[in-house]
Amino acid sequence: MAEPLRIALAGLGTVGAGVIRLLDTNGALLAARAGRELQVVAVSARDRGKDRGVDLARFAWEDDMTAMAARGDVDVVVELVGGSDGPALTLARNAIREGKGLVTANKAMIAHHGMELAAAAEAAGTALRFEAAVAGGVPVIKGLREGAAANAIERVYGILNGTCNYILSTMEDSGADFGETLAAAQQLGYAEADPTFDIEGVDAAHKLSILAGIAFGSAIDFAAVDCSGISRVRAQDIAQADALGFVVRLIGSADVDSTGAEPKLYQRVQPCLVHKDHPLAHVDGPTNAVVAEGNYVGRLLFQGAGAGDGPTASAVVADLIDIARGETGTPFSVPVAAMVAMDKAQSGHRTGRRYIRFTVTDRPGVLAEITAAMRDAGVSIESLIQQGRPEEGGEVLVAMVAHEGPESGVSEALRLLEGSPSLTAPPLVMPILGA
Amino acid sequence: MAEPLRIALAGLGTVGAGVIRLLDTNGALLAARAGRELQVVAVSARDRGKDRGVDLARFAWEDDMTAMAARGDVDVVVELVGGSDGPALTLARNAIREGKGLVTANKAMIAHHGMELAAAAEAAGTALRFEAAVAGGVPVIKGLREGAAANAIERVYGILNGTCNYILSTMEDSGADFGETLAAAQQLGYAEADPTFDIEGVDAAHKLSILAGIAFGSAIDFAAVDCSGISRVRAQDIAQADALGFVVRLIGSADVDSTGAEPKLYQRVQPCLVHKDHPLAHVDGPTNAVVAEGNYVGRLLFQGAGAGDGPTASAVVADLIDIARGETGTPFSVPVAAMVAMDKAQSGHRTGRRYIRFTVTDRPGVLAEITAAMRDAGVSIESLIQQGRPEEGGEVLVAMVAHEGPESGVSEALRLLEGSPSLTAPPLVMPILGA
Repeated sequence: MAEPLRIALAGLGTVGAGVIRLLDTNGALLAARAGRELQVVAVSARDRGKDRGVDLARFAWEDDMTAMAARGDVDVVVELVGGSDGPALTLARNAIREGKGLVTANKAMIAHHGMELAAAAEAAGTALRFEAAVAGGVPVIKGLREGAAANAIERVYGILNGTCNYILSTMEDSGADFGETLAAAQQLGYAEADPTFDIEGVDAAHKLSILAGIAFGSAIDFAAVDCSGISRVRAQDIAQADALGFVVRLIGSADVDSTGAEPKLYQRVQPCLVHKDHPLAHVDGPTNAVVAEGNYVGRLLFQGAGAGDGPTASAVVADLIDIARGETGTPFSVPVAAMVAMDKAQSGHRTGRRYIRFTVTDRPGVLAEITAAMRDAGVSIESLIQQGRPEEGGEVLVAMVAHEGPESGVSEALRLLEGSPSLTAPPLVMPILGA
Repeated sequence: MAEPLRIALAGLGTVGAGVIRLLDTNGALLAARAGRELQVVAVSARDRGKDRGVDLARFAWEDDMTAMAARGDVDVVVELVGGSDGPALTLARNAIREGKGLVTANKAMIAHHGMELAAAAEAAGTALRFEAAVAGGVPVIKGLREGAAANAIERVYGILNGTCNYILSTMEDSGADFGETLAAAQQLGYAEADPTFDIEGVDAAHKLSILAGIAFGSAIDFAAVDCSGISRVRAQDIAQADALGFVVRLIGSADVDSTGAEPKLYQRVQPCLVHKDHPLAHVDGPTNAVVAEGNYVGRLLFQGAGAGDGPTASAVVADLIDIARGETGTPFSVPVAAMVAMDKAQSGHRTGRRYIRFTVTDRPGVLAEITAAMRDAGVSIESLIQQGRPEEGGEVLVAMVAHEGPESGVSEALRLLEGSPSLTAPPLVMPILGA
């Protein structure tokens, strides 16, 4: 058997401790598969004294994690510190400059600095891998970069945030509203104390921008992801969706818009109505699932646990095995120099069916006002449901499904209604994903 | 860019022609991803004159396909001839002996001779890849061998035959019986003129034996797969399953039985009742889906098109890209020398809930006879449905669900009923797969 792969591990939170536990539990199996032992030699974290439930005394300790990159006895640095910049980025840059392999679960860092790091890794001839950065334990980076590599990818989309999916599928089961479901999720550990990054879609947007880069060979452009979260989804929206044959899911979706002279990149995270016959409609709880549609393979689905120490450790160690096996090439699907910077695609001309929900005051003429705006904007209404029973404060929900049509029509209708005293809150628009 | 990867392609059926079409359509993209051009230099098939819708004049033609292995201008041989032995196997052996890479979609050959070929490839230091042999376009070999490589796999199972899945999900939608659904599937091209290999589960068993070898590092043992097909599943079984909250799917499942002194390999292909909350319950039409349960990652699902020229070509070319990138190691998850020959696990002690269906003559005392046999064998009945309306010939269906219990109990009950004049056909037993 070849020499061990010597690992320095920075960050000993639940995932870091999970990686050590995994390497301990499955060690013999991993060595058989990788052809060599995966051996942690040094670790680093903020607090040396903290009990993490794993024996750390056998590893060298570095107080300054960025110093790990310079250790002569290390082949690969595993970065599990988090944060798009700061010590994580310094460590990553140093490790690559020193010719070490780098494995990271840091989606924010890859979304913001992945191309810089990949270019450095390509120049240094070393490995950069980040399977755990997208969809936790689900090997979707590999699935896209290698499994679907023969295809022009037409679209990549999916459920990329377990917290949101847990909340939406729980609201579906319980009929409870967003606020109380979030509070329960926080108590159960499915949502952070400050859940903003998850529920506003930022975490999903990080992941989507990475997937888009791999799928389309486009330069990663996190800033261009249009992003809206789930905090405005109400129990009644989910009930209406159900009656129409849909569930509500937070979907990140990306494709290349080739209708103009130059290809443009469309990236969007938003709650959608998903037809119950679509495989994503059956993804419940804190699960992630990614669909890639290729021009030869058709629709591929990858699904599994999107977070948690075990699944994330599984993805981190899978990357280590690839490196130990020598099965590593460019970090993305094409060399960084070949990744094409694309302008952000405008969405106005994109056609589709849409669910539109208004909250209005319960008084005569409101429906006429809304439907007139739709007519004036050229939006054709497929079905309209006015909720009979007013909510507290005399608020009523009006939900409708608009026929297939351009997004610009709906935007124009909402613009016409802007400032109307009949509307008690901004309307919620959710695209419809068919079967 | 590096030198082209030079390919010899044997077999120009729909998949072979699909590979050439894919290489033509996506050529520039593939070269960018693989870092070099994928270039077909020679082809071979039985009939040179046949029009396959692709231009073959630009390639060298070999009448004797096994001679392709000896060509000096070839790096990789793609074998799409089929058949577990014969010319396909000769070509594969020759190619590896000549130090060429080998890519094949041939599940029967890998199930029967995969270890011999892999050992030869390891010795020759050349690549052997067979992604297309299991689940068509779905990158599940890669998903197990690499994506889930950090895990001890506890169980691998799934829907491995698109023909059977098309038939079962169509019966579900239409209420039609097996015979007419098969005939319709044959007309639509979803079933072969001689469908035996598919509907009796042999094709799924080939794939399962390969998956088991990768998941467990066990020696491939196709002969040890217990296999029953779907031809005995009736429309009424599917209706009863539906009423109980299940669908019927042909499931191949493998795990390692560690209850004895030595680990034993359990491999079985059979129709099962799948709970509607299980992701496999929503896999319809000619789709394949594989679940791997790992000790850290939990449940992973890979799903997509299980057959067809496009998806199969996608998997073949993904293998070629891996080879072009130099990302190839041992063909299975561990070197052949480390694959452990395991005895076949007996199934009598395996516990579970089961659906049991009898076809009986419509006369008094039949139910008493059946329930007495169950009682005598210690099988506890959870629910029992006797179909009211006799079928043609006075035949009645009696379906029941047996409580969680060992398989041996049900086998004993059926043994007690063997030869009973009340039974008009052998009973059908289907295990129940929970959510």
